[in-house]
Amino acid sequence: MKGIFYSGKLEYRENIPKPVRPAGEALIKVLKAGICRTDLEIAAGYLDFTGIPGHEFVGMVEEADDGSLVGCRVVGEINCGCGDCPECRTGNHNHCSKRTVLGIQGRDGAFAEYMTLPEKNLYVVPDHISDDEAVFIEPLAAAFRLAEQIKVLNNDVLVLGDGKLGILIAQVLAYFRADVTLCGKHPEKMSLIENKTINTVTPAELAPARKFSVVVEATGRAEGLEIAFERIRPRGRLVLKSTVAKPSQIDFNRLVIDEITIIGSRCGPFEQAIALLETEAVKVAPLIEKTFPLEKGIKAFSRAGEPGTLKILIG
Amino acid sequence: MKGIFYSGKLEYRENIPKPVRPAGEALIKVLKAGICRTDLEIAAGYLDFTGIPGHEFVGMVEEADDGSLVGCRVVGEINCGCGDCPECRTGNHNHCSKRTVLGIQGRDGAFAEYMTLPEKNLYVVPDHISDDEAVFIEPLAAAFRLAEQIKVLNNDVLVLGDGKLGILIAQVLAYFRADVTLCGKHPEKMSLIENKTINTVTPAELAPARKFSVVVEATGRAEGLEIAFERIRPRGRLVLKSTVAKPSQIDFNRLVIDEITIIGSRCGPFEQAIALLETEAVKVAPLIEKTFPLEKGIKAFSRAGEPGTLKILIG
Repeated sequence: MKGIFYSGKLEYRENIPKPVRPAGEALIKVLKAGICRTDLEIAAGYLDFTGIPGHEFVGMVEEADDGSLVGCRVVGEINCGCGDCPECRTGNHNHCSKRTVLGIQGRDGAFAEYMTLPEKNLYVVPDHISDDEAVFIEPLAAAFRLAEQIKVLNNDVLVLGDGKLGILIAQVLAYFRADVTLCGKHPEKMSLIENKTINTVTPAELAPARKFSVVVEATGRAEGLEIAFERIRPRGRLVLKSTVAKPSQIDFNRLVIDEITIIGSRCGPFEQAIALLETEAVKVAPLIEKTFPLEKGIKAFSRAGEPGTLKILIG
Repeated sequence: MKGIFYSGKLEYRENIPKPVRPAGEALIKVLKAGICRTDLEIAAGYLDFTGIPGHEFVGMVEEADDGSLVGCRVVGEINCGCGDCPECRTGNHNHCSKRTVLGIQGRDGAFAEYMTLPEKNLYVVPDHISDDEAVFIEPLAAAFRLAEQIKVLNNDVLVLGDGKLGILIAQVLAYFRADVTLCGKHPEKMSLIENKTINTVTPAELAPARKFSVVVEATGRAEGLEIAFERIRPRGRLVLKSTVAKPSQIDFNRLVIDEITIIGSRCGPFEQAIALLETEAVKVAPLIEKTFPLEKGIKAFSRAGEPGTLKILIG
């Protein structure tokens, strides 16, 4: 089959064997897949991964143990736990130490014609959600995770970074009635946000002394953490949404003295993300820049890596 | 009056002017005061403080605006807010950016015959709590703070550090029905803990692969943070109780991937600390090593700085 393969270098290949589904997993024909910053990090060699990347997808089930899934349009949770460890047995499969992660760790991903994923990871997509929108369910779930972890109602929240994830997070937090300021370098991207309760500013427009009770770091840059840390009020909460290739450094003494809380946040609940898309409180369609066919996947990656680019889809 | 004074160097002095109480503050004759690790850091020049150190105290009110306080035995909260900023107006005076802190920042402390403190900071000590025990109310409140910040019921908690603070924290968390393991280098100190539900181990006795859902860093050493970080389970919480002179470094990517939360924790509620002492669930008397008279204050400091020393009192 055709697909994008990373092995020290990112390549488009036409001779990748079509995957054979193991018991308990569905064989899925990929309809659309989105390129995320993690995929760019894989392509840059920052992650220890070999295989087909891609973890934001929507597809059609062609084969499955559960016959009722066949023919369904699905999205899927990307973490696949062992099912038997203490984490998995307490429903915490996202943190199984033996887990594979779709297109990121030990498991081929969605930038190909076909993929497999455990059936228990799948969610059927309602008909009125388009393929393009469905690709955003995975990153929207990650944005939603934050609202599971902390209460934001009426909190003044600064979201740093106007990438796709930052814009999704701003919308999710506004849905939960936070007073959201989104700070990014691209006013033209931020202007795509229809929810006008979200205050959008450039770094230069943000008053130097202004501090927030919640700051969300979604820039994906090493210095983002330091900038975020400077903007938190005493007893405030700093949420880290993005991993970065280079290490950061903060003043842990200030963390103790000001009683700051730092919260790591990763994957989130698909059911809630789907429900949120159905409310139309979160708009994802304006975030799509362009769709490339699989054959132009390498070009899609290079376009996705250009500063200020919105979501690039493959499919 | 007699007192211990730090000005580039720690000295015992006999010619310190007796403080004059400002309106709203009480003049307090110090009965007993305890040496804490922060005092040792002041003496070592790590903090930018000049004056009389000492913030763990019990004293007798000699003069006050509120006549009912005169003659009362009191302890007191150490943070003195401006009373007028947004933090103070929301009851968060511990985090007022203009605050003074007793014996630590902009305000003379308790290692002297007399001191002053705002009357609103004072708590009358019940008769059946001894002077020696009352000195522990401030650090016990700091230990209690942790239970205000996170729920620990039935959580497996590792407390790192068998200093006075670590031992107090272990007792407070056991009171709140956490499953507590206290890890320290001094079995003879840990054996003083009467609550046998607290599991005490040396670092060598702690199984290498064992992880905890809550880890409390109370070693006061720079490497304590790194050790604590290694011991947290995914989705676990790391509480930082001690500031350190040297900066630390952790892997923030693991923080995101494992969704770890880091919580800075400082001063706590005096009323609850007094109530806890009254329940006798927390025993502080065994933690006292020796009491020195004020005239031997310099000797008291050098004894307090010896590794493995328990609480040193002055008075």
